[in-house]
Parts: sequence; C-alpha cells; structure tokens
Amino acid sequence: MACCGRCFCCQCCCREGETRTPEELTILGEIPDEEQILPRKDYESLDYDRCISEPYVEVLEGMDNKKAKKYEAVHWMMVFAIGVTVGLLGLFVDFFVRLFNKLKFTVVGDSIEKCSDKGCLSLSLLELLAFNMTFVFIASVLVLIEPVAAGSGIPEIKSYLNGVKIPGIVRLRTFLCKAAGVLFSVAGGLFVGKEGPMIHSGAIVGAGLPQFQSITFRKIKFDFPYFRSDRDKRDFVSAGAAAGVAAAFGAPIGGTLFSLEEGSSFWNQALTWKVLFCSMSATFTLNFFRSGINFSKWGSFQLPGLLNFGEFKCPDGDKNCHLWTAVDLAFFVLMGVVGGLLGALFNCMNKNLAKYRIRHIHPKAKFIRVLESLLVTMVTTIVIFAASMLGECRDLSTPTAHNTTLAGSEDINSTIRQFFCSNKTYNDMATLFFNPQEAAIHQLFHQDGTFSPVTLSVFFFLYFLLACWTYGVSVPSGLFVPSLLCGAAFGRLVANVLKVKLGMDIYSGTFALIGAAAFLGGVVRMTISLTVILIESTNEITYGLPIMITLMVAKWTGDFFNKGIYDIHIQLRGVPLLEWETEVEMDRLTASDIMETNLTYVYPHTRVQSLVSILRTTVYHAFPVVTENRQNERDFMKGNILISNNIHFKKSSVVSRAGEQRRRCQSMKSYPSSELRNVCDEQSAAVEPSEEGEDLLQQMLERRHAPYPNLYPDQSPSEEWTMEERFRPLTFHGLILRSQLVNLLIRGVCYAENQSSTNQPRLSYAELTEDYPRYPDIHDLDLTLLSPRMIVDVTPYMNPCPYTVSPNARISQVFNLFRTMGLRHLPVVNAVGEIVGIITRHNLTHEFLMAKLRQHYITI
Amino acid sequence: MACCGRCFCCQCCCREGETRTPEELTILGEIPDEEQILPRKDYESLDYDRCISEPYVEVLEGMDNKKAKKYEAVHWMMVFAIGVTVGLLGLFVDFFVRLFNKLKFTVVGDSIEKCSDKGCLSLSLLELLAFNMTFVFIASVLVLIEPVAAGSGIPEIKSYLNGVKIPGIVRLRTFLCKAAGVLFSVAGGLFVGKEGPMIHSGAIVGAGLPQFQSITFRKIKFDFPYFRSDRDKRDFVSAGAAAGVAAAFGAPIGGTLFSLEEGSSFWNQALTWKVLFCSMSATFTLNFFRSGINFSKWGSFQLPGLLNFGEFKCPDGDKNCHLWTAVDLAFFVLMGVVGGLLGALFNCMNKNLAKYRIRHIHPKAKFIRVLESLLVTMVTTIVIFAASMLGECRDLSTPTAHNTTLAGSEDINSTIRQFFCSNKTYNDMATLFFNPQEAAIHQLFHQDGTFSPVTLSVFFFLYFLLACWTYGVSVPSGLFVPSLLCGAAFGRLVANVLKVKLGMDIYSGTFALIGAAAFLGGVVRMTISLTVILIESTNEITYGLPIMITLMVAKWTGDFFNKGIYDIHIQLRGVPLLEWETEVEMDRLTASDIMETNLTYVYPHTRVQSLVSILRTTVYHAFPVVTENRQNERDFMKGNILISNNIHFKKSSVVSRAGEQRRRCQSMKSYPSSELRNVCDEQSAAVEPSEEGEDLLQQMLERRHAPYPNLYPDQSPSEEWTMEERFRPLTFHGLILRSQLVNLLIRGVCYAENQSSTNQPRLSYAELTEDYPRYPDIHDLDLTLLSPRMIVDVTPYMNPCPYTVSPNARISQVFNLFRTMGLRHLPVVNAVGEIVGIITRHNLTHEFLMAKLRQHYITI
Repeated sequence: MACCGRCFCCQCCCREGETRTPEELTILGEIPDEEQILPRKDYESLDYDRCISEPYVEVLEGMDNKKAKKYEAVHWMMVFAIGVTVGLLGLFVDFFVRLFNKLKFTVVGDSIEKCSDKGCLSLSLLELLAFNMTFVFIASVLVLIEPVAAGSGIPEIKSYLNGVKIPGIVRLRTFLCKAAGVLFSVAGGLFVGKEGPMIHSGAIVGAGLPQFQSITFRKIKFDFPYFRSDRDKRDFVSAGAAAGVAAAFGAPIGGTLFSLEEGSSFWNQALTWKVLFCSMSATFTLNFFRSGINFSKWGSFQLPGLLNFGEFKCPDGDKNCHLWTAVDLAFFVLMGVVGGLLGALFNCMNKNLAKYRIRHIHPKAKFIRVLESLLVTMVTTIVIFAASMLGECRDLSTPTAHNTTLAGSEDINSTIRQFFCSNKTYNDMATLFFNPQEAAIHQLFHQDGTFSPVTLSVFFFLYFLLACWTYGVSVPSGLFVPSLLCGAAFGRLVANVLKVKLGMDIYSGTFALIGAAAFLGGVVRMTISLTVILIESTNEITYGLPIMITLMVAKWTGDFFNKGIYDIHIQLRGVPLLEWETEVEMDRLTASDIMETNLTYVYPHTRVQSLVSILRTTVYHAFPVVTENRQNERDFMKGNILISNNIHFKKSSVVSRAGEQRRRCQSMKSYPSSELRNVCDEQSAAVEPSEEGEDLLQQMLERRHAPYPNLYPDQSPSEEWTMEERFRPLTFHGLILRSQLVNLLIRGVCYAENQSSTNQPRLSYAELTEDYPRYPDIHDLDLTLLSPRMIVDVTPYMNPCPYTVSPNARISQVFNLFRTMGLRHLPVVNAVGEIVGIITRHNLTHEFLMAKLRQHYITI
Repeated sequence: MACCGRCFCCQCCCREGETRTPEELTILGEIPDEEQILPRKDYESLDYDRCISEPYVEVLEGMDNKKAKKYEAVHWMMVFAIGVTVGLLGLFVDFFVRLFNKLKFTVVGDSIEKCSDKGCLSLSLLELLAFNMTFVFIASVLVLIEPVAAGSGIPEIKSYLNGVKIPGIVRLRTFLCKAAGVLFSVAGGLFVGKEGPMIHSGAIVGAGLPQFQSITFRKIKFDFPYFRSDRDKRDFVSAGAAAGVAAAFGAPIGGTLFSLEEGSSFWNQALTWKVLFCSMSATFTLNFFRSGINFSKWGSFQLPGLLNFGEFKCPDGDKNCHLWTAVDLAFFVLMGVVGGLLGALFNCMNKNLAKYRIRHIHPKAKFIRVLESLLVTMVTTIVIFAASMLGECRDLSTPTAHNTTLAGSEDINSTIRQFFCSNKTYNDMATLFFNPQEAAIHQLFHQDGTFSPVTLSVFFFLYFLLACWTYGVSVPSGLFVPSLLCGAAFGRLVANVLKVKLGMDIYSGTFALIGAAAFLGGVVRMTISLTVILIESTNEITYGLPIMITLMVAKWTGDFFNKGIYDIHIQLRGVPLLEWETEVEMDRLTASDIMETNLTYVYPHTRVQSLVSILRTTVYHAFPVVTENRQNERDFMKGNILISNNIHFKKSSVVSRAGEQRRRCQSMKSYPSSELRNVCDEQSAAVEPSEEGEDLLQQMLERRHAPYPNLYPDQSPSEEWTMEERFRPLTFHGLILRSQLVNLLIRGVCYAENQSSTNQPRLSYAELTEDYPRYPDIHDLDLTLLSPRMIVDVTPYMNPCPYTVSPNARISQVFNLFRTMGLRHLPVVNAVGEIVGIITRHNLTHEFLMAKLRQHYITI
C-alpha cells in the first residue's frame, strides 16, 4: 500500500524529469519557446481577505466606535500625507529635469548657433553626446543597484494592484533608484517619459509611508496594528498610484479611475473617496509649489500637472472655428484604426526586442546592460542632431492672441528653434527634436505655423523606432510622453493633409490630440482611466466623445493583433495576472476541474515535529485544518447514493476525493502541477542523481533535506501515507498560513501532552503581525528550543471561515469570488463539508484555464 | 411531540398578536413612531447572481466565441441606443420647458411692464397664477395616474441600483408620467429641478429599451434570452441612470461615477466602459441637437448639458485675478460647515413634513394631494411676485468681454429684469425670482453687477423654505437646481461681505459656486459623483480641490445630525437599503446570530401536492433543496465531539440546527421574524378571530386558505412536523426559487411514481425565463391539470452551487459577499454541509443588525 502511494505520487509528478517544464525554465531564467511563456509559480498572491482568527476577534471586541473613529482619522491623515509627498516628489522631479534640460540645451544650443557660422558642428555634437551619455550612465548605474527600478513601473504596479506580490517593487531602495534614475534618463535625451516612473514612485510612497508611520507610532504607544496587513497596504498603494497619476497629468479623477481600473477589487465607496482625496492633494500640492516657484505667485493654483496639453481654444472672434465637428468624427475613427495598427506594430516589435534582451542580454554580465543604454543614447543623440540639421525652414506665423500665455507656463514661440534658418523662419525639425518632449507636444498641439509633411513623417518614423528600442533598456523609462509625441506627429500630419491638400476647415490641434490618443491607446490599451486622463489634461470636457471613440477603436483594432504593451511585459515576466473576467467558454469547466488536489493537511492539534516536517517538506503557503470523518467513509464506499423521500437521488454534488485525485493524476502531464516543488520532486531527485546544469533547482530541493530527524516516520504526512489514508474524507475546519504556523513555532505556542490545550500561551494580534511583511522562514527556526513531542493547537489562529466554493461551481462564479474578494486561497468544499481541493491564483490564470479547457474538449 | 412543535411555533411567532409590529404597521401604511420606521419586509431583492441550473449550462455549452461576440455587439448597440434615447429625451424636456417658460415670462413680463405705469399689477399676478396653477395641475394629475412618478426619483433609482425591487419604478407608465409631469412642474414656477426626474427617466429607458428590443428580436428569431434577467436589467438601468446624469449636467464621467456609487456592485471593467460610452452618447446627442436647433450650427457641439454653470474666467488682461487662492480655502471650509448645517436643517424640516404627509395627507382622498400642490404653487407665485416688487435697483455694470457669450447660450444681461427700475439699473430681486432657475444660477455665478446683501438674504430665506415645502408634494420634482440656487445665494452673500465689507480681492463667482456646492452637499450628501459632476459642469479642473473639500466638510457636518435627503426618503418608504459597509462594532455578530432559521425545505424529488402545499402556505421566495442525513444525527446526539489524532477537538464550527432554533426563538420577541406572513400567522389567525381594522392583513392571510385538499397531512412540511423532524440534519444541495417552482408546475414538469425521473420533460432556458419579470402566482395555477401524486425532480432547475457562508463568519464578511455579489438569498451552511439558515437582505439592514447587536450586548 505504502509502495503504491509512492509509485502513484511519482507517476503524477515526476515522469517528465528529463524534459524541463516551461515553469522550471522560467524560474531558471530561460525562455523555452516563442509563445510558451507561462505564468511563473513562485509569485504569491496578496491576501485581501481578513483572517478572522481569535486574536483578530479580540481586537474587534476591543474596538468601540471611538477607537474606530480614531483609526479612521489616522487613515485620512495617512492618505493626505501620501498625496502631499507624491506632490512634492513630482515637484522635485520636475525641478531637476528642467534644470538639467535648461543647462544642456543652453550650452549646446549656444554652441550650435556659434558653430553654424564657424563650421564646428562636430564639437556641438560631442558636447551633446557628453551630456547625454553622462546622464544616462548615472541612470543606468542606479538601475543596476535595483533592477526592479528599470522600465516604466506600470506593469509592476498593475501586477501589485492585481494582487501579485512581486519582490522588491515597493521597497525604499527601488523608490530612490527610480526617482533619481528618471531624472537622468529624461535629461539624458532618451525618448522616455517621466510619467510611468512617477506612478511607480507614488505607489511606493503609498506602501511605505503608513508602515514607517506605524513604526513611529509604536514607539509612542499609538496602538494601531491594522495597517500591518496586505489589505491595508494594497489600499494605500492604490492611493499612492492614483496620486502619482494625478501629479503626472494633473488628473485627479483620472488617477482615481486608474487605480480602480487596475486595482479592481470590489467598489469600495470609502476607499474611493480617500483615493480621490489623495489624488487631489497630490495635484494641488504640486500646483501650489510650481505656481509659487515658477511665477512667484504663492497661493494661486495655475499649473495643474507635470504634463499638460495647454489650452485648446479657437481664436477669439473667429465665429466659424470649431474645435471639432460631427464630420471630423469619421476621420477620428479612421485615425483610431491606424493608431491601433501602429500600436500593435510597436508592441510586436517591442515584444520581440524584450524577448531578445531576456535571452541574450540579461544572462550576461550586468555592465552589458549599461553599455546597451549608452549605445541607445548615442544613436538617439546622433539622430536628433543629424535630423535637426536637415529640417525645413518655415515661416513663423504671426502670434495670435491666445498663444501669448500658454497655460501660463511659457510662450509657445519661446521654444522655437531657428537653427540654420534666417530670421522670421524657423527650423521645424529642430523645433521638435531639440526641445524637451513636453515643449514638442505643445508645438504639435498649438503651433499655428505649419510643419512640413516630410518633417512630420521623418519625425514620426524616427521617434517610433527609437522609442520602441528604448523601452526596455535598463533605465527608468515611461512610455506615455513618447507615445503621445509620436501620435501627435501622426495626427498633425493628417491635419496637414486635410487642411492643405483638401482645403478642409479643421482645427489642427484637435487632430494632433486625437492622433496622440489613437497611438497611445493602440500601445497601452487602457480604456476608462486613459479617456479621463486625456480629458483632464486638455481641461476641455467637449473632447470627451472624440477621445473616447478614438481610444475605443484603437483598442479594438490593436486587440485584434496582440495585447497592450504593459500586459506584454507582465506576461514576459511570467506574472500570474488575473484578467477582468473569464471568457464565456470557460464556464464549461467547474471548480473541480481546475482545483489543486494535491494538498497537505494539518490537524487542529498537531505535534511540533509533524508541523516542522510539513513545513520543511512542502512549499505550500496555506494548510487546510481538517478532522477525519470516518462515519462518512462508508457512504462513499456505497457509491454516493443517498436515500431521501424513498427516491434514489444521485448525489452528484459530492465529489469524492479519491475519484478526483485519480482523474487529476491522469491529466497531470498536460499541465504541470500547481506546486512545482512538491514532495514528489524530492523523491525523484533522490532516485535520479542530479544532472548537469540543474544546480539552481537542485539547491532549492536540497535546502529541504534539513537535518531534522523524523522521529515518528509513521506520522509524517507526506511519506508514508497509504492509499486509503490519502483519500479518506476530511472535514474542513479552516485554513492556516505557513507564516502563521512558523510564527507559532517561533514563539513557542504549544502545550505538553499531559496538559489541556487551554495551557497553550496565547498570542495577541499585534504579536501575530509584528513581523509583517517579512515573516521568518522555517529554515531559520532554532529547533533546539522546541520539544518535538509538544502539541500545537492551531484552531485559535486559523481562519475558521474563509470563503469556500462547491466543486460544481462554474469558473465564472469562482473567478468572480476570487478576484473580487482579493483572495489568496479558496478551498473547494463538497456538499458534506469535506475539502476536495484548493484554488489559488495560479489555477485561474488564462493560460491554466485554456490548458484545462483544451483537456476538457479532448475528454468529451 | 406534534403539539410541542405547534406550541413552539406559536411561541416564536404569534405571541405579539395583540400589538402590531412596526412592519405590520408600515405595510398597513401607518407610521408607528417618530423614530421607528423599520425596513419593510415586502420589498424583494434583485438577483444579481446567476443561477447555474442545467438549462443555463445548456445555453453555456451552446455558446461559442462567435455567439459571445454577437451578444457583446448587441449589448453595445443597446447601450448606444439607451444613450441616444436619453439624449433625445433631454432635448424634449429642455425644449418644452423653454417654450413654456418663454411663453409665460413674455406674457406676464409684458403685462408687468405695462401695469407698473397703469397700476394694474393684480392683473399681472392673476395671469401668472393662472399659468402656474394650470401647469402644476397637469403635473399633479399625471402623478395621480402613477404615484411612483412623484418626487425626484433618485431615492427610487438608488434603491433599485442597491438591489431592491420596488414595484412600478421602471414601468413605461411611470416614464410617461414622469417625463411629461416634470415639464409642467418646472414650467409651473415651482422651486423644483428637472435633473432628478431626468435621471429616473433615463433609468427607465435603460430598463425598458433592451426588453422591448428583445421582444422584437424574438419575432425575427434572434435568440438571445440573456437580457431577461435581473442581472442584465440592473446593468442597463445603471447605464440609463448614468446617461440621465450625463444629459442633465453634461457630465458623462460624473454620470458613470454616479451609477457606480449607487450601483456599487463589484467593479466591472467592461460594464463601466459601456456605461461611460452610454453617458457620452447621451451628452453628445443632446449637445448635437441643441447646438443645431439653438444656433443652427449643425455638426458642432457647443452646449454640453441641460444645466451648465457657464465659464468661470478672469477678465483677459487682469493679471492679478485668481479664481481662488490658498487663503480662500479657509473660507471654503467654513462655508462647508455652514452648508452642512443648513442642509441638515433642510433635511430635518423636510423629514418632518414628509412624515406629516404620510400620516395626514396620503390616507385621505387623492385629490387632496392635488390641492396641496396647487396651494404650494399659489404661495410660491405670490411670494415671487411680491418679492420682485420689493427688489433694490442696482447699477448695471459695464458688460465685460467674457460676458458677451455665455457658454454660447445667451447673453447674461438678457436675463436681467428692470421691473420698476430706471434705465441703467436693474431690479436685483426680480432678476433672481422672475427668471428660469438656470438663468438665476448664471446670474449669481457670473453677474458682475452686485446684488444687495438684503436681497440675497431674503432670496435665500424664501427659497430655502419654499423648496423644502415643495419637495415631497406630489409632482415630479428634482432637488438639485433649487439647492444649487439656494446655496449660490448664500455663497454670493459671503462674497459680498468679504469683497465689499472686508475689501478682499476675491472672485465672487467662485464663492457662489462653493456656496452652491456646500448647500447641495449638505442636503444630498453625495461624495465622489457629486464632486465630479460639479467639476464637469464648471468645465474647470482647477475647481477640483475646493469643491471636494467643501463637499467633504459639508457631508461630515451634516452627517453629525441626520442622513442625506434621499436616504431619509428611502428610510421613510421602508426600503431595506444596504449601506456601504457595516460598522466595525457589527463584527461582534456572526452569521448564525442574524440568519433566518425558520425555513421551509424542498426535497430533490417531491410530490406535486407537497409543492403546492408549500407554495400556498408560505411566502418564502427561495427554498433550500435538502436531503436527510440520518448518519450524522448520531454525532449530534453525542455532543459534537469528533475524535481526531487521538485528541479531543470541540467542533465549534458545527452549529446544530436544534440549538440554533432554540436560541433564535428565545430572541424572537425583540425583533420580528424576517418573514412576516409565515405559517404561524395563519394558525394564530385561525385561533383568534380577526379584530376590527385588520382587513388588509387578513385578506393577505385568507388568500392562502385555498381549497386545495391536503391529501397526505402527514407529509405536509409545515403542520405536522415533530420536534425531531424539525431539527434533523439536512444536507444542503441547492436553492430553488418560488418562481421556478411555479413555472415547473405550470408547465407540468413532473413524472409518475412508476417512472424514472429521466422521463420528466425538460425545459429550456428560454422557457424558464419567458415570463420574466412577472412570473405567475401559485394561486393562478389551475390544479385540475396536475395529478397531486406526480413527482417533480427539481434538481435540474435549482441553483446547485450558490455562494454560502459558514455560521461563524463575521458580519463584515457576510455583508461584503452579499452586497458585492448582489445576492438575494445566502444559505448558511455548517462545516458538515447542513443548512442552518438563510440570510436575505432584511437580515443585513442596519436596523436589523442594530437590534441584534443590542440583544448580543444584553446576553453577554
């Protein structure tokens, strides 16, 4: 029997020992196949659900309305503090980027002005190269210190808000590297924006500030252990991310919707209101200081966000001017289609580039990455410089009234470049390339003077390619501004054609804006929040419809080919993201089709040695607490027939664990087990001597051969179970987390055999959560302090009533419950209260469900 | 034993036969006590959760991706159609209100101009009275036809989106009466707005349009039975309500947030995107036609919503002008406090008035209501007329540049009234009173000329009292515009004081706006959506912070005293609304404390006669499908001790039904049973002869003494159950709705005793939902067609896996699940799969929870 159990176990997990599964490869840092990037299994979920254990109930009982109000007040203060901090951060970034840019463009611009006469342009180029490469080198080195700081950070924040714990993304070190790095990468003339990194930095502020605060509070005996949970942290992160958007775009409502769209938990009225307040605080803090510093008008609020699009307005007195008409809508739809296509192309190219990087650059020495960034900088700089020399000289239009003050910030004509052109004309290419990106966007949106179609095409083409290359280089790099600029050039080109060639009466700025929206929409594929962000950035509610329609069409077109750029990068990283909802087809599956049945159980009262053994030999993060249910066993043997009302009723809702397990094992080969490193791996590793190159995997496995003697081998749950034991019915009583068990062991919560369980020391909620978020590992446990024969009563600390589902529940129902409630483990319990499986995030990823669905079609 | 069961039953339900419970009184239309308005029990929940029965699964199996896409496309088309229809509706309302107002003010204005010389002012007053009273009479008669059309409709829509089915609120007749009625009540000069009714009308369009469409589709064999469910209907209603807000205020984002804030289900990305699209469609349809009709500029989009606030803008060239500064924020906070106080006073007065109406006006003949509306009209008209004669004459300011075109609609000076004043001056009181309300708002926001403090005070005072009196009169009447106007007068008064008396450099319009926000916020206490609606109406993102802070302060201040006006009216109507979240204190209760244990069960295979008997003798809307579980019974007798791992484990998570029932019955007196008209009522009614005045209640009860003979009295589930039978453990298998059972009986879905259940006819999903939303009643069933000894197999039609909770789950967890998933019945199932109770909406209302909590404190 024992042999059978082991054989069986080997059968289901260890057969493919020779060929690596995609997950193993992903863990090992290799990408197996073009299309086969499966979600990695080593990312854990955040736990949004509260564990109502006894210590928590004690806290609840001690919580009167006064304390609740105090808690609420602290929550509001925190949210306000986050908003203000993010606002100040925005100010800091803005100030230094401006400073560096001013320095650079003044020095190089002067040099060019001089050299265009003298013919020493190569000197100017060298100056520019020196500036840019120094800046980018600093940014790149900062990213080497903390690799998570690379890129825009939106994929990371999206994953976090989706409920995935990615190590390091909300650490202080990441914050410092990201915030400082983005200054230099933007100032270094790369085609990157600072908006993505702002959002990531905001999220880190949200995650960190309340934690820091609570440490301070603990010193002054301010007893609020509530912020020390995934739930509160995730709430604060959404507030911080929203504040980041609000500061970056001056769009507090857009920011709130961004965190709702990505955060996606249930619609929490109170939280949303706080998030909006946080966004407002960020916008107006930034606004206050920028207005004060830039215009010395302290107390006024004139500069909304870091990026704003200026004021779209018809010249006064021109009665025939419309920003847009119904006829234009048709063109907007077409532009949306083109934007979607271009975005899909961009994403496709960038995806292949990213794959190439993962395969050929990341495995190599780290300085290779720095070299790559420097190479990109060099090429970008040379292209900018060369293109600027080739620009056409265009007539300066007479400045019209409304151009004189552009959102109060700066005259639009002050950013015009006249390189190599005579007075009263300007170099259009240089104007676009030889300016900060924000100024170039303003030029495209508001410059009455025209840009030549050739210039716009060249600009678009170069920008498209370079931005695509740049995104993914190891510097902090946003994608919003480059996309907007690229799209604006495209839109302006369309406007040029319509206005000049077809003689239509249109407003060029609107077309530039719609082009920008179309391309950005095609690249990032965001919907609600992007619409609102763009509306707020233009500060013109009447643009709502065209922007929305354009984004909608661009998204639909793009989705025909591939995913949005952020989702692509999330997928490349193997993050098990949960989609918004499951496809209709998935509802052919039930919970029992997708659940993980290979569980390790804990009894309500367990010996220390068994717990240690379980913790050391498994990697599960949660253990069902069960009792045996021998009486029911007989029913099962009889074939699940219950008699009621003298009519035989086939109890189809009772799935027996035995039958389930058998079915499951047969299907194991088609999709790898949800827990890669389970007990069986160990056995196979022992049987087959490790091959070459398996060092990493081997190390992981060997760690578990810890020198803790198995005193009672017959009680060890994983090794000696007979077939019968494996499939006996187990009544489900609750769920206990690995971290909680380790905590109990470390704090010596147990009682001796001859005592009653009431003698067991009791932990308070504060003690339980003290180590959040980094709980100690079982391998750090000093076992000499524990007597292995002591007994631990886990019932006070387990979660006695997690949400559960029936094995017959359809996927959409399971998915909805899991995603909406932000769960981490969802036990599947049959009609008589026996646990038959557990569903985690990994069982609900699109890839896993698709694999199961294919299998389902094969079996029927 | 049988006697005991009956006694027991009487004990728990029938003791308070003498004194009426608050619910009975509410049902009978009486209000028992000042503070004791408890939620009524006869409102049912909408069912947002899908019932995954076998016919539904068949539909799912037949659903491939192509069909799903087609379905999705139809969904989008529906949403677009709703948006356009609501936009056109807005156009219709706007057009006629303008027409009527123009007619009225032209005739009466001319008359006054003439009569101020001739001294025949009483004639003018009579003319005005005649106009107003005719209009209001029509509005009032329309409301008599459909009483639900009275008031703003926002409480009704809020209840509906919250998940409560209120009869009649989404009917076509209500739509017609509301849309036509609001024209006349606004044109009749009452202090009411058209925004609330617009939102209600929009919601009805949302509910009705897709249903109508699907009937058309059925004719042309367009087989989409999906829209025929509460879930889809509620989705469309949120889209319609959002479109209503969007059309009324030109605020598509605000509308979307409104339906999210009130709809509150889980954040559904796809739905939100559709709702936003629907709102945009409504705004821009309205915009398109209004721009076309008013300016003959077809194809341009210049007039966003029915109500807009005009453009807040500093005069060009004035460099020192700020819309607001940091210093002003302090005043805004103070104004928020005052607004909150005024709002609370308004709500308190209106609440008492409403109670008075319910007690003294509603029970009387219907024409009394019409007389009341006419009385209000008369008083309002006379006050307007008298006040206009007393206004001060103020100097006309020189029209500044930005006033020339006010949002393109009309010159602000064109709405100035000069009654009794010389040239170059105007009558400030008449300007405010003798204009449509929108014009008065524009005057207060944008008129550079001043209003005297006395005028503003008098205006505020009169408006406050009359608006308070008017809201609740039986005409369609919104509250937004009167509140805005009232608050704007208050804000302008503050501005006057600050500017003239203290000589501060402020922008009066901003203060008027903030005053309006403060008062409106104090009255309605909405948060997120109101902030966004106001920001969008001003089309000025920089007002975000001050508006938000003011609303926040106003809400906090007001909440100190009472609820928002809509919540007050919802409460007065006894609607069992679910709050956003439960208070922290409530978590001391568990699911077993609040659940309803007095259930009626159905077996998987039941005789027709038993089903009919159950359906006729109970009023439950759902019946758990259970099987008996005799094996487990022995465990219970042993005292819930399970042995595991040789250690005794008290299975505290198993609540026995018997113990539960006993506890429950002891506590029945403090709060009445969740089902008022349950079986026991019947018995008591039979025992005690009915008293005077119980006609209504009695009729309800007598209906159930239907002449269907109880052939097998020993099998009737309610009458003859022994104690033992009542408390035997029942394994839970699913939930079947009353409507489903009736449907099965009517369609003859049953099989004979000697047949197998596979011979039972099978219904398709379309057949099951054909009668939605009005399913036939059991009393309409023709029993002669059914053999009572046939057997019905309900298992294919029940919901086999509804969400369930454990009896130990805390209230916050239960509440979250119930509210987020939009459930109607939530079975409470213990650790061994036995059903111990059911939780419905009524068990989760604030009042019920408070009662239970008080009881909890008493018992410990």
